[in-house]
Amino acid sequence: MSAALIDGKAVAASLRERIADDVADFAASAGRVPGLAVVLVGDDAASAVYVRNKAAACAAAGIAGHEHRLPADTSEEALLAVVLGLNADPSVDGILVQLPLPPQIDASRILAAISADKDVDGFHATNAGRLATGLPGFVPCTPLGCLHLIRSVGPDLRGAEAVVIGRSNIVGKPMAALLLGADCTVTIAHSRTRDLPEVARRADILVAAVGRPEMVRGDWVKPGAIVIDVGINRIASTPGRTKLVGDVHFAEASAVARAITPVPGGVGPMTIAMLLANTLEAARRHAGLA
Amino acid sequence: MSAALIDGKAVAASLRERIADDVADFAASAGRVPGLAVVLVGDDAASAVYVRNKAAACAAAGIAGHEHRLPADTSEEALLAVVLGLNADPSVDGILVQLPLPPQIDASRILAAISADKDVDGFHATNAGRLATGLPGFVPCTPLGCLHLIRSVGPDLRGAEAVVIGRSNIVGKPMAALLLGADCTVTIAHSRTRDLPEVARRADILVAAVGRPEMVRGDWVKPGAIVIDVGINRIASTPGRTKLVGDVHFAEASAVARAITPVPGGVGPMTIAMLLANTLEAARRHAGLA
Ligand SMILES: NC(=O)c1ccc[n+]([C@@H]2O[C@H](COP(=O)([O-])OP(=O)(O)OC[C@H]3O[C@@H](n4cnc5c(N)ncnc54)[C@H](OP(=O)(O)O)[C@@H]3O)[C@@H](O)[C@H]2O)c1
Ligand SMILES: NC(=O)c1ccc[n+]([C@@H]2O[C@H](COP(=O)([O-])OP(=O)(O)OC[C@H]3O[C@@H](n4cnc5c(N)ncnc54)[C@H](OP(=O)(O)O)[C@@H]3O)[C@@H](O)[C@H]2O)c1
Repeated sequence: MSAALIDGKAVAASLRERIADDVADFAASAGRVPGLAVVLVGDDAASAVYVRNKAAACAAAGIAGHEHRLPADTSEEALLAVVLGLNADPSVDGILVQLPLPPQIDASRILAAISADKDVDGFHATNAGRLATGLPGFVPCTPLGCLHLIRSVGPDLRGAEAVVIGRSNIVGKPMAALLLGADCTVTIAHSRTRDLPEVARRADILVAAVGRPEMVRGDWVKPGAIVIDVGINRIASTPGRTKLVGDVHFAEASAVARAITPVPGGVGPMTIAMLLANTLEAARRHAGLA
Repeated sequence: MSAALIDGKAVAASLRERIADDVADFAASAGRVPGLAVVLVGDDAASAVYVRNKAAACAAAGIAGHEHRLPADTSEEALLAVVLGLNADPSVDGILVQLPLPPQIDASRILAAISADKDVDGFHATNAGRLATGLPGFVPCTPLGCLHLIRSVGPDLRGAEAVVIGRSNIVGKPMAALLLGADCTVTIAHSRTRDLPEVARRADILVAAVGRPEMVRGDWVKPGAIVIDVGINRIASTPGRTKLVGDVHFAEASAVARAITPVPGGVGPMTIAMLLANTLEAARRHAGLA
């Protein structure tokens, strides 16, 4: 292995410390703490864990977490009413509705109802448009975290060739927009891309956000590239056990890359740190302190 | 010359005929004609010509053109009041504020005030976000026209390598989003791109939207590529005279490409046709007929 390991856990921990300091400063100026409302519908076990982690991270940073647990049979109208109430609540700076939602609820309608100025997940079309056109808004947490990790090993990205594999609205597309904003030449690849290995090999910065275990092999990676692995895939390991792997074949890629994120411990820990950062930013804007 | 000429004038003319038929159908169902409000502030000669052309195109298509001419010293607040009035006017389906605006007016504030559902120019951040996230909205007319021209010679774009040179909010970025939506592998290049000729040479579909006369040379073009030239540049020709050229060196590129747009007569005529199409679409949506 020759690549430097990009330690997302460490980067996220130091970011979270800085955010806690900034939250304290905010509270001193504004006379209140930032507030994040997290809405959980139903009792999906994984979602419950995510919500608990977010609540703990808020508490550690000095952000007030407002948890709203609704039964699995909540109607779309009832959830909409909760969201509209949170939109109007001045103690709430950020609103996060945990996905997936139960089948009777149209998630896109709920996400569209969240005030764009409290949309700290950055999923609202208005925020996608602000990102696309270079206006201030909220950027989805995962690609924002990836950009931080990239900058931690390559502060000047101007003119670099970036390739993003994956074009989802919450990872691939906003990642491409962020890299373009950082003056990279950006290519976005996906399931229809012909000769993906060849496209990937162009990349000085390669981001994989696909959901296919170890798809990116060593010979897809340009020597000296920065490799960011967003994928989280659970696969069988020893009989009866499973393990998490990314979209990148770590052992092969780390023999070629200059720097690479591990899975777990790479991109994952950054997402919550970015959620806290977005919530603080929302609070600053609402208080006229941005 | 081996490339087929993509005749934007002819494509636009046949589109405009079809739009006129569709406008007549709309009027029969809705009991009213679509309306486009065009706002011109000041007396910039070029802007006056554009506005006159748009009015004539509306008339030919059966769309009611509402022209609003305001003096050059109009205040931002006064213009804003006009826009808000048009937002509220049910006979107005589309609103277009001709740019540039006089220096005392913040154009971004005016464009943001236009109702996203009447923003037939597609410049509103909400429409950029809808395009980015795959929701129905309005797409800027010039890249929309380019996509039509590309499809006129290459109906199935899946998996094609597309390179867009230029990343403006009104041409380059929406062009890239449209090509991604058509399942191309999309690269977006700009002034910071290293080795632009090499990047351009990857393209099965090459779109130049830069504003640099004849920058794209013949050896930047992959043999067999489709070349779309958005640039409109006026340069000196014979002493005392000028001529229009694109961002592509036409003679060189057309020896290599499979198909190419000329300047003038390529992309230019499509822009107004797309404006009419967007206005009709807005009217359909407002009437609940979309
Ligand atoms: N670390 C974190 O905090 C975090 C956060 C979010 C997501 N993730 C992980 O990141 C991965 C991607 O998430 P997502 O939400 O973006 O997924 P998604 O919505 O399923 O999008 C996957 C993308 O990958 C593309 N793709 C699928 N198969 C491909 C192939 N064989 N070759 C090339 N491209 C292919 C798809 O292309 P088409 O568009 O053509 O179908 C699509 O654009 C998942 O593993 C997810 O668990 C991690
Ligand atoms: N046919 C029509 O109806 C129509 C409509 C609109 C525009 N146009 C024409 O299309 C052209 C582009 O218009 P626009 O509004 O998009 O222009 P713009 O806002 O000036 O954007 C120009 C883009 O080109 C990039 N660029 C500048 N110099 C470059 C270089 N040497 N190499 C690579 N990229 C370079 C810039 O990169 P940076 O971002 O790094 O600065 C920028 O992204 C103009 O000629 C305009 O007249 C035609």
